[in-house]
Amino acid sequence: MNNFSRPSARQANQLREVKVQRGYTPYAEGSVLIQVGNTHVLCNASVLEKVPPFLKDSGQGWVTAEYGMLPRATHTRSDREAAKGKQSGRTQEIQRLIGRSLRAIIDLEKLGPRTIHLDCDVIQADGGTRCASITGAWIALRDAVQKLLDQGVLTENPIKDNVAAISVGMVDGHAVLDLDYAEDSNCDADMNIVMTGKGHFVEVQGTAEGQTFARQDLDNLLQLAEQGIAQLVAIQNA
Amino acid sequence: MNNFSRPSARQANQLREVKVQRGYTPYAEGSVLIQVGNTHVLCNASVLEKVPPFLKDSGQGWVTAEYGMLPRATHTRSDREAAKGKQSGRTQEIQRLIGRSLRAIIDLEKLGPRTIHLDCDVIQADGGTRCASITGAWIALRDAVQKLLDQGVLTENPIKDNVAAISVGMVDGHAVLDLDYAEDSNCDADMNIVMTGKGHFVEVQGTAEGQTFARQDLDNLLQLAEQGIAQLVAIQNA
Amino acid sequence: MNNFSRPSARQANQLREVKVQRGYTPYAEGSVLIQVGNTHVLCNASVLEKVPPFLKDSGQGWVTAEYGMLPRATHTRSDREAAKGKQSGRTQEIQRLIGRSLRAIIDLEKLGPRTIHLDCDVIQADGGTRCASITGAWIALRDAVQKLLDQGVLTENPIKDNVAAISVGMVDGHAVLDLDYAEDSNCDADMNIVMTGKGHFVEVQGTAEGQTFARQDLDNLLQLAEQGIAQLVAIQNA
Amino acid sequence: MNNFSRPSARQANQLREVKVQRGYTPYAEGSVLIQVGNTHVLCNASVLEKVPPFLKDSGQGWVTAEYGMLPRATHTRSDREAAKGKQSGRTQEIQRLIGRSLRAIIDLEKLGPRTIHLDCDVIQADGGTRCASITGAWIALRDAVQKLLDQGVLTENPIKDNVAAISVGMVDGHAVLDLDYAEDSNCDADMNIVMTGKGHFVEVQGTAEGQTFARQDLDNLLQLAEQGIAQLVAIQNA
Amino acid sequence: MNNFSRPSARQANQLREVKVQRGYTPYAEGSVLIQVGNTHVLCNASVLEKVPPFLKDSGQGWVTAEYGMLPRATHTRSDREAAKGKQSGRTQEIQRLIGRSLRAIIDLEKLGPRTIHLDCDVIQADGGTRCASITGAWIALRDAVQKLLDQGVLTENPIKDNVAAISVGMVDGHAVLDLDYAEDSNCDADMNIVMTGKGHFVEVQGTAEGQTFARQDLDNLLQLAEQGIAQLVAIQNA
Amino acid sequence: MNNFSRPSARQANQLREVKVQRGYTPYAEGSVLIQVGNTHVLCNASVLEKVPPFLKDSGQGWVTAEYGMLPRATHTRSDREAAKGKQSGRTQEIQRLIGRSLRAIIDLEKLGPRTIHLDCDVIQADGGTRCASITGAWIALRDAVQKLLDQGVLTENPIKDNVAAISVGMVDGHAVLDLDYAEDSNCDADMNIVMTGKGHFVEVQGTAEGQTFARQDLDNLLQLAEQGIAQLVAIQNA
Repeated sequence: MNNFSRPSARQANQLREVKVQRGYTPYAEGSVLIQVGNTHVLCNASVLEKVPPFLKDSGQGWVTAEYGMLPRATHTRSDREAAKGKQSGRTQEIQRLIGRSLRAIIDLEKLGPRTIHLDCDVIQADGGTRCASITGAWIALRDAVQKLLDQGVLTENPIKDNVAAISVGMVDGHAVLDLDYAEDSNCDADMNIVMTGKGHFVEVQGTAEGQTFARQDLDNLLQLAEQGIAQLVAIQNA
Repeated sequence: MNNFSRPSARQANQLREVKVQRGYTPYAEGSVLIQVGNTHVLCNASVLEKVPPFLKDSGQGWVTAEYGMLPRATHTRSDREAAKGKQSGRTQEIQRLIGRSLRAIIDLEKLGPRTIHLDCDVIQADGGTRCASITGAWIALRDAVQKLLDQGVLTENPIKDNVAAISVGMVDGHAVLDLDYAEDSNCDADMNIVMTGKGHFVEVQGTAEGQTFARQDLDNLLQLAEQGIAQLVAIQNA
Repeated sequence: MNNFSRPSARQANQLREVKVQRGYTPYAEGSVLIQVGNTHVLCNASVLEKVPPFLKDSGQGWVTAEYGMLPRATHTRSDREAAKGKQSGRTQEIQRLIGRSLRAIIDLEKLGPRTIHLDCDVIQADGGTRCASITGAWIALRDAVQKLLDQGVLTENPIKDNVAAISVGMVDGHAVLDLDYAEDSNCDADMNIVMTGKGHFVEVQGTAEGQTFARQDLDNLLQLAEQGIAQLVAIQNA
Repeated sequence: MNNFSRPSARQANQLREVKVQRGYTPYAEGSVLIQVGNTHVLCNASVLEKVPPFLKDSGQGWVTAEYGMLPRATHTRSDREAAKGKQSGRTQEIQRLIGRSLRAIIDLEKLGPRTIHLDCDVIQADGGTRCASITGAWIALRDAVQKLLDQGVLTENPIKDNVAAISVGMVDGHAVLDLDYAEDSNCDADMNIVMTGKGHFVEVQGTAEGQTFARQDLDNLLQLAEQGIAQLVAIQNA
Repeated sequence: MNNFSRPSARQANQLREVKVQRGYTPYAEGSVLIQVGNTHVLCNASVLEKVPPFLKDSGQGWVTAEYGMLPRATHTRSDREAAKGKQSGRTQEIQRLIGRSLRAIIDLEKLGPRTIHLDCDVIQADGGTRCASITGAWIALRDAVQKLLDQGVLTENPIKDNVAAISVGMVDGHAVLDLDYAEDSNCDADMNIVMTGKGHFVEVQGTAEGQTFARQDLDNLLQLAEQGIAQLVAIQNA
Repeated sequence: MNNFSRPSARQANQLREVKVQRGYTPYAEGSVLIQVGNTHVLCNASVLEKVPPFLKDSGQGWVTAEYGMLPRATHTRSDREAAKGKQSGRTQEIQRLIGRSLRAIIDLEKLGPRTIHLDCDVIQADGGTRCASITGAWIALRDAVQKLLDQGVLTENPIKDNVAAISVGMVDGHAVLDLDYAEDSNCDADMNIVMTGKGHFVEVQGTAEGQTFARQDLDNLLQLAEQGIAQLVAIQNA
């Protein structure tokens, strides 16, 4: 235990450096490049003045997300999903997760009959892309909403709280925060935790990769995540 | 709180009645109809003497799963995925979950160069279909493995432990076990927990549906799940 | 000729045992599990209060069918059509046949502006699945229509007659009724005959598998089918 | 009955004029434009020196067919199947029928390890396109086989017999031969009959369109078809 | 240079023989079989009384095209695009080119709220199919428009000019007109030029196949094309 | 003519500012972000030690490209091609163009049995994305090749020349260089020109958008392009 060290030489409870560039592209209503170490995700928020069919005439709005990864975001090239003609199960899982996470903190009635569509595209990937997507997408969402407030399209802020996400995992028997690719591909268990600014849980997704985990491990991981999320929320609000 | 009652009149920590019919169809190496209340899932295990390309020449085997729901398993008819030409994101999430859960308790090297393919088809659905699929698929897997042991194809049992799954959720502020459809569609938060016979966690998937949840709620839900899984494991072993 | 015997030891003109369970699932308006020997098909009838676009504003209703087979309904596992992303030519042929057969005995004007959608899903298959589907689907259709009559949605019965189907074929030079898989995969010629309760033909589909057949063979097969259908109609009405 | 007349003024048992142009395109091993009245189908036979995977190393050959219709072969334009991204159920039914019909009269072992691929493309359509396709494809197949015999690739003719197809149907209570589009779209029952040169049946496909049909009608239709096929076979051999 | 000769023995600036059959099929509003040497393309123009969604309520019409090649139009059989489930990139490029070329010479406002849909289907291919398609499609378009003028549906001719296309290329250092397949598959550079009757350019598409080309080559090719187009326009107007 | 001014206030023959960042992402063998004004394209070159099936055992290598645009690269959001399940005709045209352009300047035999796969992904789009892709992809290709030379995998440079691309067009009767989106959407004619470092043509693609163009216009456009390409080649070599 004394000899434990992470590939990145970080402390067990240490986040990678997080950088946020707002207004990254000129056209999207919210456009954020979030960098979590070597994981870079471009999160664009588009305001569309329409709602999906199931909300027609409800007065209510919608927030949804799509996720993609550039073919050479990773160490080896992956096939382009558009060329293969379908999104993988992994991609669909992630974009459904991002959408649910954002809807957990927005008042869809206050948003009114419009959709905010988040596109999270991974430019380079070093683990934790879904968490970076959620954390960055919240900022893009806020910037798009602020634009609607500034324009008087909205009179009341529909965003109820922050939402951010972080991964935690068991590596060689130790609970660690914010796994990079080297750790993620060798860990025993891996969790993605989505929480609000107030410290409530939105999503808890834990998977035993190599080894099942005990209740005590789970408790340790949850505690690490709570600490990491608090830091991310502070960055979002900075 | 005193007046709390469930639509099914069950106790908060009470499972629905579980029935298992083994050998349900004559052709599959393992064939189990599991009934959890009004949720009925047919779990067929097929032994295929081949492995996926990424395991070629590794000597190792594979366990995988597919999930489907008959179009009129539910109160209203859903479109048939085969006719639409693709599996939904939800279907893919579920079948990936079932596969991961079973792989967590099997020694793929002992299984040798063959695949056990689990088909989980929902005949009727009243909530909790993914959990019933996992619990039933384990039995079908065990029956298929037993056949391989009886035939001398395998000399050592590759199954390391039981695996079973149950849903828990917050309904009107109460933690309840094994949600049926009426509860599932109205709950504030919903978790699917997959655990081994020894009580270790394999998957923890919690989602805030209407309302985010506090750490204390999460702890209560995990405890309920631990109790429920223990009962399911006993049923599997009966 | 004297030594002729069938794998199942049945007489040349003997049907397999037919069992029908009505109300098999709780949600569909008509739900029938039909068992013809080891061929088991679940036929669910769903009433949808809409019609396809080409009937819009015509006042007329529609009856249609979809067919599927669970991947391990057969001796060896088949790929799941939803996973492959398309229905095979065989599946499409069969579901078109089921739909045409049912439409032949229903008055679509009396049905009014609604669709009855039949889902025929094969749980286990030992030959003759399309015939069992038609025979079972008619019962599910009748039960769904009866529900509409009971509810006063319909005031007049749109069903004009029974419809049922049976296979016949030439095996080793003998005309036999109701082929099971062992016979079906070795026969010289194979016919599927769909007839009404009054003994009229709806569909006649004969195919030379190994050997073309003479007019006299065809006449013998048609006669066997007429006998078989009469028995199936009696079972439907029981 | 005395007043019965067909839209084309033909006798009830009269074929449309049939014209055959062999060597229609310069590249295919067999290339036949068959004209049956206003129905024109181009049947190209391609010899491919390979077999489908399921025949690999069997020494046996294969004959298969594909069917298509130019978008404006008919009175109104249909969507192009290549643009829609899939072949309709009808197209698949027809091409499976053509392939089965040709395989019924060829000795696949004598053909040896090669495939003859028939492409039947409808240039203009006035009813009976699947029958014209089969009748024309047989000629293209024979021409391609003759080329293989002339080249010494084959030393024995694998073609065992002619095969040809014709439609018959009940129109206003009369059995008529070789329905054109005007009759086909108004008939009560419609059959496509595929027969060999020796007068044996290969396929019998009858469908009640508006009205179910009695055994006597069926017998009359079969007799008409036998007469028509005999004429088509004579044309093929001319 | 003195010894230069083309496979077809044509002069460098000599077109292949062009034949046009109008009214080739009986149903399309314009139907032209154009034969440019051994390249034969059937061009059918269909008048549809509707416009694409983006022109709804604009009062304006639309002209569009689809392109296909019969599987055995060429020396070896190609896969059928409808069976593969998608049109190739090449097919899409060509049909977009045909559509743009025709729209360049039609007044869409005068055409009014209707679509003329051109289907260009290659019956046999010996190089230059896209050019033959454009040249033939213009004739089919004119015939369809003439029918609308004759019927009084249109009162003013929306066609502003002819449009025709020809290929030119560098073969062994020589600029040649109207490449056939033998030349096309061996040329250094290949251009498809689309021009109006007045001699203006609509499309210029040049590609270095084996070898890049100098400005002087380009000028020579453009001049050859201008001569070829003038002859094609004369044929169109004959 | 005196009053002519461009939306960007550039001279008719003035390029937008071009910036190139090499080594933009850490994993790809060549990774270039090219910025041409507000058009930003990330060009990643991946070296794959395999070749497409048609080059198997030929000893020869391959260079190919794929193109994509982030959904919100433009003023309004476009649907994600991966979610729609297919690449548009436009996307396919562009990626085929990029691949051909690069293959024109590489010696595939010297490259040896490997593929260099260029991924050109548009981060933001203000016109000219295909030209920026080609110009940037060449730099990424060169960097990847240099890495292979440095590693001794290649001993001889397979790159024969530069290749770059630029758009030119007729706007209000004036020939202008390097159209941005505002000009591109209002021009009369639009050309994309691909040339080598030596000033030879690789691709010439001109399209009359609103108005056909005369030979003199074409000559003026070609001359402008030659000037622009020379500047781009200088930037590539800087």
